[in-house]
Amino acid sequence: MLSEKEENRTELNELGEFGLIDLLTDGITLVNPSSIKGVGDDAAVIDNSGFRTLVSTDLLVEGVHFDLMYTPLKHLGYKAAVVNFSDMAAMNAEPKQIVVGIAVSNRFSVEALEAFYEGLRLACTQYQVDLVGGDTTSSKSGLFISITVIGQAATDQVCYRGGAGESDLICVSGDLGGAYMGLLLLEREKAVFKADPSVQPDLDGFDYVLSRQLKPEARMDVVAALREAGVRPTSMIDISDGLASELLHLSKASALGCRIYEPKIPIDPTTVRVAEEFGMAPAVAALNGGEDYELLFTVSQADFEKIRHIESISIIGHMTANTGEVAMVTTDDQLIPLKAQGWDGLKQ
Amino acid sequence: MLSEKEENRTELNELGEFGLIDLLTDGITLVNPSSIKGVGDDAAVIDNSGFRTLVSTDLLVEGVHFDLMYTPLKHLGYKAAVVNFSDMAAMNAEPKQIVVGIAVSNRFSVEALEAFYEGLRLACTQYQVDLVGGDTTSSKSGLFISITVIGQAATDQVCYRGGAGESDLICVSGDLGGAYMGLLLLEREKAVFKADPSVQPDLDGFDYVLSRQLKPEARMDVVAALREAGVRPTSMIDISDGLASELLHLSKASALGCRIYEPKIPIDPTTVRVAEEFGMAPAVAALNGGEDYELLFTVSQADFEKIRHIESISIIGHMTANTGEVAMVTTDDQLIPLKAQGWDGLKQ
Repeated sequence: MLSEKEENRTELNELGEFGLIDLLTDGITLVNPSSIKGVGDDAAVIDNSGFRTLVSTDLLVEGVHFDLMYTPLKHLGYKAAVVNFSDMAAMNAEPKQIVVGIAVSNRFSVEALEAFYEGLRLACTQYQVDLVGGDTTSSKSGLFISITVIGQAATDQVCYRGGAGESDLICVSGDLGGAYMGLLLLEREKAVFKADPSVQPDLDGFDYVLSRQLKPEARMDVVAALREAGVRPTSMIDISDGLASELLHLSKASALGCRIYEPKIPIDPTTVRVAEEFGMAPAVAALNGGEDYELLFTVSQADFEKIRHIESISIIGHMTANTGEVAMVTTDDQLIPLKAQGWDGLKQ
Repeated sequence: MLSEKEENRTELNELGEFGLIDLLTDGITLVNPSSIKGVGDDAAVIDNSGFRTLVSTDLLVEGVHFDLMYTPLKHLGYKAAVVNFSDMAAMNAEPKQIVVGIAVSNRFSVEALEAFYEGLRLACTQYQVDLVGGDTTSSKSGLFISITVIGQAATDQVCYRGGAGESDLICVSGDLGGAYMGLLLLEREKAVFKADPSVQPDLDGFDYVLSRQLKPEARMDVVAALREAGVRPTSMIDISDGLASELLHLSKASALGCRIYEPKIPIDPTTVRVAEEFGMAPAVAALNGGEDYELLFTVSQADFEKIRHIESISIIGHMTANTGEVAMVTTDDQLIPLKAQGWDGLKQ
């Protein structure tokens, strides 16, 4: 498993708050014309004439959302940024700026935070997003990360959860369930390691599901492909808690029901293999696993021809007039109601 | 001291994440025309044509920034919002929206979070700000609050820390040191209570400094008064860490030195009395105490006549060409350098 390199450890109190901020934000440059002023004042300044501004915030808590025993801090930084970008994708908008709050205990070294920021910066570079501000403070124990993302969209392009029409097609991007299978694998190896630290982790051949868990991506490419195809989804959400939970959100917000078809749910072969290893039906991983950060959206039937050629999109069902009925037709033709069983930290 | 009423305790896990969000955000209405879409989607949507958008974020950590033994949760909610509004005041901008992240352990009841949100909402109503989104999750222990504020300003009205000119007048709003004296009083009563829980707190006659600590306000009135007087500060910052620390920020960002005069620092008589009770020079409380959330700003000498009649503004010194020299002339005519000794969580 991972262990922090201790030979290069600088204590946080050697730098103090402002020294740490200077170090972590050194050399950050702004790429978006709308980013007028970044880190270093009471607030960042953003110019947004003629666009809609979108804002979303996410908290990541050590021991709840991530386990540093198997999550490299650089990956954590990357993921923390990307899950926020995914919220912008879910609005059919483009992320432009982030502000980052971290509360950290003395257990962490300066180098550990630098690794976290390295991941943040990599994600920002990858997605052309500016890191424009933040707050850095201490915690009694553990690492808390708060990221707020600001995005832009043309006024007529914003997609809400509520907006699906009766009989609209239900689509998902990519494939589902992989991130959860990656998590189960990492948890299993952690348990093995705890029982006997001399055992080496056995993660060969599982790269795909591990990267789904440790290094998810926001589907800006799907947002771009839809725009290029001239399609504005009638509703959209990103899949952070599992397909079932998100379908319930879309249906409730749109005051409609929906029906999806189990055989249509896109699942990667590696996900299927790992699910079987764990004695779990792959569809259950897709429905309840969460953290895939794929997009779930609806389009008008009239747009079918425009989207059918887009490789990374699967049509998995349609909206119905039956308000409150969120159901799946299984592979053996049973109609079962879907319930939200995704991750819910407060119920743990 | 304060004790949570236990007779009306609803466990967090009775509601779950979405039930809790529904409860806490029930009936929130939007008052700003720029708030297009609030709570309930992947992101809030804000319309900002023709203005600059400003964004700032603050993390508040239990045991570091607040002590629930003497901080009522409603006050904490109010303060958490107001300290963010103050960041907007410091940019000469108006707060318009906030997003709120909270991570909370099972130690807290639903009613406790409702009290916190009551304070948040009160602050939002008071300052005409919309609560437009957030994230609610669990923590292993303690309460973590992350608030991001979005504000607006006309493009030519934004004030930065760097922008002061040589010989500009240095001004502060209100009076300083009170919040820190309030904190010392509360800490003293806490220690007394811990030693003997039958002793009643003795806080009579200290209302002013207690309210400075527990219920600070953002000086939007000063921002408005300056605008009315036709004055745009050349630089501005809010006093969260103490006057000395903020003077160092302004001077560094403006690449100038500064000189202030001890007798000119505005200090309330109650603050003086409490400081003396604690054997502390009142100026030390003002310089290093922090959390007053007053505004520190510079104006051109040419604007002197425009601001001298504004009641809540004191002129305490002037900028100098001596880069790096941040100094105070004491009451007995000594020239002493100022150092940042304000609260710095990471050095504790």
